[in-house]
Parts: sequence; structure tokens; C-alpha cells
Amino acid sequence: MKIGIFYRTDYFKAAEIVHSAVKKEFEVAFFKDSSENFYPDDSIRVVLSVGGDGTVLRTLKKVQCPVLGVKAGRLGFFSGYLLNELDKLIEDLRNWNFTEDRRWILRIESEGSHFFAINDAVLVKDVQQKIVDFIVEMKDGTFYYHADGLVVSTPTGSSAYALALGGPIMLPNVEAFEITPIAPQFLATRSLVIPSSEKIRISANEPVNLVLDGDIVCKTKEIFVRKCSKNIILLRPKTYDFSTSIKEKIGYGKLVLGNGNQA
Amino acid sequence: MKIGIFYRTDYFKAAEIVHSAVKKEFEVAFFKDSSENFYPDDSIRVVLSVGGDGTVLRTLKKVQCPVLGVKAGRLGFFSGYLLNELDKLIEDLRNWNFTEDRRWILRIESEGSHFFAINDAVLVKDVQQKIVDFIVEMKDGTFYYHADGLVVSTPTGSSAYALALGGPIMLPNVEAFEITPIAPQFLATRSLVIPSSEKIRISANEPVNLVLDGDIVCKTKEIFVRKCSKNIILLRPKTYDFSTSIKEKIGYGKLVLGNGNQA
Repeated sequence: MKIGIFYRTDYFKAAEIVHSAVKKEFEVAFFKDSSENFYPDDSIRVVLSVGGDGTVLRTLKKVQCPVLGVKAGRLGFFSGYLLNELDKLIEDLRNWNFTEDRRWILRIESEGSHFFAINDAVLVKDVQQKIVDFIVEMKDGTFYYHADGLVVSTPTGSSAYALALGGPIMLPNVEAFEITPIAPQFLATRSLVIPSSEKIRISANEPVNLVLDGDIVCKTKEIFVRKCSKNIILLRPKTYDFSTSIKEKIGYGKLVLGNGNQA
Repeated sequence: MKIGIFYRTDYFKAAEIVHSAVKKEFEVAFFKDSSENFYPDDSIRVVLSVGGDGTVLRTLKKVQCPVLGVKAGRLGFFSGYLLNELDKLIEDLRNWNFTEDRRWILRIESEGSHFFAINDAVLVKDVQQKIVDFIVEMKDGTFYYHADGLVVSTPTGSSAYALALGGPIMLPNVEAFEITPIAPQFLATRSLVIPSSEKIRISANEPVNLVLDGDIVCKTKEIFVRKCSKNIILLRPKTYDFSTSIKEKIGYGKLVLGNGNQA
């Protein structure tokens, strides 16, 4: 079994620990800084991504195979193992004892190019720019927003930027997009939840930044967004449970004891 | 074609106008106050519901056939024709020139009985009661809420009580429930969006009111909620469009001119 390792530059020490543990048992096809321009071939069974959620996102966009996040400290939304769980990780690799956590992603088209986003596609003005007029068009109707920006998010991204803007938490297997405005006028702060079968056109009255999963891509006045036919696969320990991760990371829906609560 | 008419008691005058217009062309099988305990047989092709959204909701729960809402003043979310559009209504009935707006509904089980809800199933404490511990259990995980109540809403209900509590707007054809807490402790105010394929158990540490589409049903400590296999059908004019209705009724996503907006 060939395994690849990507790591975030400043996680080099942690990555070396992972590398030396893994290479005792498995063929390590590459051990690369995730910021490098390197795209592995298709013979890799799994890529370990050592770093935070950003590193896992970047890794997922470089590879076709499943990705497994390893992190020092606390687990991220995308990570599955902590740095101090390497024995367990190697045993699970040996027995391929994982939950495959499949997530659907966005396909974004702008001016003839197309891109992918796992969390969200954001259209947002520059600081010096005036408030923007957005038009969101789809089969289900047309909506207008006068706002600093718009966030189109997957269920996976609902716990990221959209959450910070007041959006709901969506379970990963919900078949819907969420559109959440950034600083809208006229109190239209609510998110709009749209079936994932929709094809959405968003236009702006002047060029704005297109930001995909946190990376600025270009300036544009028009994008088309739809569900991508391809999934991403995260490997998780068998014990992984999305609701536990939401409760631990953001405290939502968590049992608070010592409060008269039934336990 | 046999047509039935339900009306809200204080819409009697409006209902009489509808009745006398319709009976010239069609067989009116009944003309009844919607608060009466009357359930029509299956030979009716359509029931006209004269009143507001509450009347349409009550009508939908009494009949199997499509329902068409007629309203004086402004259109409601569930109505399709205004009282001053009766000529159009009769012509559309003659040619059966409607959009069938199918909506999925909730099936709620509690202590051996089952019920339906079109908008929402609400568990809520009495005013004199202390804050309640709720547990929401499903295949996707378990969530805890320490709150005055919980609202389980369909997409149709997302523009009703859930919206007033801060929830998102869901397009009618989204296959997801929304759970929104009422006055939750610990800032857990966000809605949770759950696939409509889920079967949800909600339990409370003491009996609370079960309120379905605004009607108090019983006190209970436990309910089971899932998508009902049966749809409801609202007849709408061919020009009906959900996004237009959202924009007109709550102003969300509306084009505001004279604001530098592109028109």
C-alpha cells in the first residue's frame, strides 16, 4: 500500500514524526510540504495530511484518493487522528479500519474557468469598495441582496464561514446549499437553503473577489454554482461521529451537566 | 366536477360571494364553516378554503384532495387567489389551469397516537414551568438543548414560527427538517438542518405542550417525528412563484430600487 504525506510548512516536526512511524510499515510515495506545487499520481491509496483544516482542504484539492487528517493539539473538523494516536492510526491503516466520510462539493464556473470548493464559494467586495448589488437566479426564483458579499456553502461549510454569519448548522448529508449574505442591508440576514439539484447564477453590479475555501481566486461579476459530480472522501476512525465533533468544537447541542440536566 | 367550500367563521360574507359565483358553474358539494367537525368524502375534486393561512391549514387536514386558498386583502403563504379574482378563479377551475404545489408534511407520534403537521411540530413549556432539558436523537447523532421549547419545521414551515426564532428560509422542495430552539441557554440559538429521511426522537425531562401548526394537542415527554409518506397539494395560479411570495410577504431577497441598484 502506497501512502502519501502532505504537511503544512510549520508542522514539519509533527510531519516527521508521522513520516518515520508510517514508513516502518508502508511505502511512503511522497512526503511533501502542502504548499508545494506537487500533484501525486493515482497509485496512492491514502494521503495523510498533517496540519489543520486548511491543510486538509488543500490536500483534498490535490488528490483523487481518500485523505486522512492528522493534527497536533485538538482535532479539527476535517482531521481524524491526533498526533499522539499514531499507533492506532497505523493499526487502522493496516486493517483499513476506517469510516469513509464522503462529502459533496461545489463546482464553480467563472469566465470560462471552473473551480471546486469543499466549504464555500464567497463573493465579497474589497474594503474600499461600496456595498454591492447581487442577483441570485435559479429555477426556483430570483433573489436580490444589497450586501458586502454572499457565501454559498455546502453542508460541510455550514460550520465554517456561514456559521460566523448567523447561518444554521447543516448535517453533512443534507442535499442542500446555503446562501448567506455578508452584512446585508434591509435586515435580510437570514440564510437561504436551496436544493443541491439547483444550478445557481450569481451576478454582481461590479467586479468582486471570488474566494474559494478561503483562497482568493479572481475578480468577477458572475459565477455559476452547482453541486459537483465528484465527492471527496475523508477517512475517519470508526468511532467518528459528526454530532460529537460539532458538540466538542462549537459547543452546539452539547449536554451541560450540573444544571438540573438529566444525564 | 364537485367542489367543496370551507370558510373561517368571520369570513362568512366573503365565502358567500365565492359560493354564489362558483355554484353557477359547478356542483358545490358542501359549503361549511371550517371550524365544524365535518370531513367530506372522496368524490370532491377541490376544496376552496376562504380565509387566511390558518383556514387553509385546517382545511388541508380535513381533506385528501387539492385545496385552493381564497383570501380577501393580501395573499397569504397558502392562498392562491384574491377575492377580487373570482372570474379568473372560475375560468381556471373550468380549464383546470393550475400549478399543483405539492408540499411534504410531518408525521408525529406521541404516546401511541399519531398526528400530522404541515408547518411545524412545537414542544414548548408552560409560562409557569422552568426551562426544559430536551434530547434530540437520530441516526446522525444526539443533540441536547436546554430551552423553553423546540420547533421541528418543514421547509413550508420555515417561513412561519421557525423564521421568527431566527431560522433560515428553506425553499419548499428542500428535503430537510429544521430544528430551532426557543430561548436556548448557552447561545445555541442556531437551527439544525437534518435530512428528511431521518427519524427523530425528542424527549423532555418533564411534560411539555405539543403544538401542531398552532393547535395545542396534548402534554407529552416524548415525540417521534419523521417525514409523512403523504403530500398535501395546494392549487396555485400558473403565475405562482414561491420566491415572489417570500419577497412580497417578508421582503427577503427583494429588489430595492432607488438605491443605486441595477433594475
